[in-house]
Amino acid sequence: MKIGKETIPRTAICTSNEETIVVRGLDLCGDVIGKLSFSEYFYLLLTGQRPQPAAQAVLDATLVAITEHGLVPSVQAARMTYAAAPEAVQGAVAAGLLGCGSVILGAAEQAGEMFERIETTRAESGISLDDAAAVVVRDYRAARRPVPGYGHPLHKARDPRVAALFDVSRCAGASQRFVEVAEAVERVIPDIVGKDLRLNVSAAIPAVLLGVGFPRRALRGIPILARSAGLIAHLFEEMNHSIGFALSYQATREVQYDGEVPTGFAADA
Amino acid sequence: MKIGKETIPRTAICTSNEETIVVRGLDLCGDVIGKLSFSEYFYLLLTGQRPQPAAQAVLDATLVAITEHGLVPSVQAARMTYAAAPEAVQGAVAAGLLGCGSVILGAAEQAGEMFERIETTRAESGISLDDAAAVVVRDYRAARRPVPGYGHPLHKARDPRVAALFDVSRCAGASQRFVEVAEAVERVIPDIVGKDLRLNVSAAIPAVLLGVGFPRRALRGIPILARSAGLIAHLFEEMNHSIGFALSYQATREVQYDGEVPTGFAADA
Amino acid sequence: MKIGKETIPRTAICTSNEETIVVRGLDLCGDVIGKLSFSEYFYLLLTGQRPQPAAQAVLDATLVAITEHGLVPSVQAARMTYAAAPEAVQGAVAAGLLGCGSVILGAAEQAGEMFERIETTRAESGISLDDAAAVVVRDYRAARRPVPGYGHPLHKARDPRVAALFDVSRCAGASQRFVEVAEAVERVIPDIVGKDLRLNVSAAIPAVLLGVGFPRRALRGIPILARSAGLIAHLFEEMNHSIGFALSYQATREVQYDGEVPTGFAADA
Amino acid sequence: MKIGKETIPRTAICTSNEETIVVRGLDLCGDVIGKLSFSEYFYLLLTGQRPQPAAQAVLDATLVAITEHGLVPSVQAARMTYAAAPEAVQGAVAAGLLGCGSVILGAAEQAGEMFERIETTRAESGISLDDAAAVVVRDYRAARRPVPGYGHPLHKARDPRVAALFDVSRCAGASQRFVEVAEAVERVIPDIVGKDLRLNVSAAIPAVLLGVGFPRRALRGIPILARSAGLIAHLFEEMNHSIGFALSYQATREVQYDGEVPTGFAADA
Repeated sequence: MKIGKETIPRTAICTSNEETIVVRGLDLCGDVIGKLSFSEYFYLLLTGQRPQPAAQAVLDATLVAITEHGLVPSVQAARMTYAAAPEAVQGAVAAGLLGCGSVILGAAEQAGEMFERIETTRAESGISLDDAAAVVVRDYRAARRPVPGYGHPLHKARDPRVAALFDVSRCAGASQRFVEVAEAVERVIPDIVGKDLRLNVSAAIPAVLLGVGFPRRALRGIPILARSAGLIAHLFEEMNHSIGFALSYQATREVQYDGEVPTGFAADA
Repeated sequence: MKIGKETIPRTAICTSNEETIVVRGLDLCGDVIGKLSFSEYFYLLLTGQRPQPAAQAVLDATLVAITEHGLVPSVQAARMTYAAAPEAVQGAVAAGLLGCGSVILGAAEQAGEMFERIETTRAESGISLDDAAAVVVRDYRAARRPVPGYGHPLHKARDPRVAALFDVSRCAGASQRFVEVAEAVERVIPDIVGKDLRLNVSAAIPAVLLGVGFPRRALRGIPILARSAGLIAHLFEEMNHSIGFALSYQATREVQYDGEVPTGFAADA
Repeated sequence: MKIGKETIPRTAICTSNEETIVVRGLDLCGDVIGKLSFSEYFYLLLTGQRPQPAAQAVLDATLVAITEHGLVPSVQAARMTYAAAPEAVQGAVAAGLLGCGSVILGAAEQAGEMFERIETTRAESGISLDDAAAVVVRDYRAARRPVPGYGHPLHKARDPRVAALFDVSRCAGASQRFVEVAEAVERVIPDIVGKDLRLNVSAAIPAVLLGVGFPRRALRGIPILARSAGLIAHLFEEMNHSIGFALSYQATREVQYDGEVPTGFAADA
Repeated sequence: MKIGKETIPRTAICTSNEETIVVRGLDLCGDVIGKLSFSEYFYLLLTGQRPQPAAQAVLDATLVAITEHGLVPSVQAARMTYAAAPEAVQGAVAAGLLGCGSVILGAAEQAGEMFERIETTRAESGISLDDAAAVVVRDYRAARRPVPGYGHPLHKARDPRVAALFDVSRCAGASQRFVEVAEAVERVIPDIVGKDLRLNVSAAIPAVLLGVGFPRRALRGIPILARSAGLIAHLFEEMNHSIGFALSYQATREVQYDGEVPTGFAADA
């Protein structure tokens, strides 16, 4: 069935003939294997360009910052899935990645979108950065959208990963433009939102990556790639010592059933 | 419900308190972000150790070798999925990873298992490497198992990525033990199998990684992590210029329906 | 980690003791197995009530209407996934379901939301049904949202499944309230949108289901459950005669590579 | 890329022209919608035949028996996934289905395979059913394979769903051939395995379905389709009252970290 108008698939990422695999214009075997690190190559495939040193430093730092954070819900889902279906590691990784959604890890891309709007507003209106930040944050509030990338369930202070990422960005000589935007948002939040919500890692990621030219719409790929690595480490631990079912047992110990029961049914003690 | 005996979940990968995230004994913010590349960190999370330089070189090379190979079936599945469900990039990546199975990319781990059996056979029996390879390959044939990691749909000669990976391994000073095992298998195949099946990239990966101490059962993670990166690059291209439905239209142009039809039904011209 | 305020999980769907499994207040083994059909039981689990005969007829009809439509993109994704990873049928089904998104099958729930808004607008404003439909469709246009459930890539006339579903609804004595809303939208579209977009199956599904009390937010479950059944049938055919790789081969026959190539690279003829 | 020899995709399930959708030789809109229940249609799509009344009764009963069993691991994975990624219901269902693997729900198909081997052994050797069962169960033990479908973490007696399914099969007049095989296995287990493992629902499913001609290799589809329905019901409850994060919080309350920590690190009290 034809859906949409285009029928000829086009791509600019990879082609090959019998001897050579071409990736973004380079010979994979001659120019890339052994010459680029994995994250450099990711940047090349995504953007068509090799990363500058600052971009490389910032990209590695953001990936490293969110690869692992303990037995979070997506890791639990992956380990339970592996315990039930050990024939398919790929299925357990997929189950974990499916939780990289708008609530937990998608905020990085949403924060990036907000930062770009603030920067555009400032440039077009000629107002100060803080005023531009206030305009956009008020818009989000009016539309009842959360301000993405601020506040944290655990930390009242800034998530410690924020300072670490900002340090890498500064030391690598990356543009601080979007770091400033991110901090302007933090400054205007208390007056507009009525709470002192601090920058969390999901705002820090676009703050440093947009400054090195990383494409905003590709930001969703950062947590997905990072978590793939974290999930694989957890699944290797799971292969050697399974806790998937122990996690699911613990999860249900306090469950309360608030539906009806047939006459005479007695819950187990 | 209690499934199995253990009820207390244990992990040695990550813990945290309000200020500090600890990963494999290190402080994530102080010791890791900005200091380790993404692939170094992956090795650390997986094994508990920072990689030696040879291990690092070989790990990057294997990941780079299989990240991307054009519009392969799993990339097609991911791009079709994104075209139909653009609200969920994570779902499109998951759909692509679900094709990293035993037929296409799972062979790396299976080849690694075969190489370890050959090495064990040689060590225990005191026979030559080629004899040990022949013993194990004959066992596979007797059990009607394919010899994993040999032969290729396109290339009659060795896949060009094999030489590139072996070069990296040699130049990095990595142990050549499992490269020798892999080449012994290649030598004994013609007599036993009756065909001249050459080493492909799925055999080259364990050949170089087992030599630097990468754990065999974690080999399944290599194609999964690599393909996550490749899929994200394809999905970013898909966001900017969609071909998911064009691929699915092309796929069905030659479809033949060989079931029954009701009286009077005429296929579209 | 604590995310959100609630810490005690509650559910009203199922509980059990050593002898009895209770589902929605009934004894699964005594009251349900052998007494309810699979789709009746689905309705019970979802809503807590057994379906009335009209609800049952309409539910079966909507599920049947969208279970199968040939080698659509999600079926292709599932069959390619199975061909690559035959050890995990569940992974291939999951890959197919991941394409049940906003573009292809999610429109049913979106159309249901639009119908409820029209009905509320009519009831609150005291205007005619067509006027209420026009108000809401104009709102969608102003917000640049597509009108969900109208128009079809193939059919200029109404999709034939629409009439079949409306017939079932009428014969079963179901309320026609939302069928009338759906037809009012179809009447006002040409003036507002400038094109004669006809009701398709994604609008017909909420039109008949909302009339029998099926919950609007559960509408997303209808295509997902239906497609699970269709995917399983395709995967059973795939087990017996694999076409997953043939589909992916066809998909790429006309691919055009529009990136750069290294000097001297010649595409295969 | 061409993988394998076949390049022309064929299917016998569905075709269509501009007016008519043909499924297994029938006109979907004229012959199927409103005339077949959802589970009847599933049987038709899978096998190409409409089910006989006994097959229909048994199919509905098996699907109903395993649709729902409370907050099992796959339901937890799905609810955690939805809480983190509410934009994609399909992703949460997929995450749940990925746990329908060899350990938890795949046993139905494996038990079916064992029953067919016993029946073939009996027919070919002319020995008694119990002797044939003993031969095959001994083979499984010799190969260190578990006997699929026997024993249960909770119930020492037979799972109550077994009797319910056998009742439906008997009352529907279905062949009892494979019920007898299943009971023969139960009788020979104590002597061979040294434990009194009773038939569980995963063995009862093939016992009743193989008797009505349901294809053995399609048995994997039964838990997958059934659980799709159960997962949708849970996700609708999750939409209205989220417990995904409460489950994951509970899961980690007793976690023990047994890795290293940096000097001075103190776990939260």
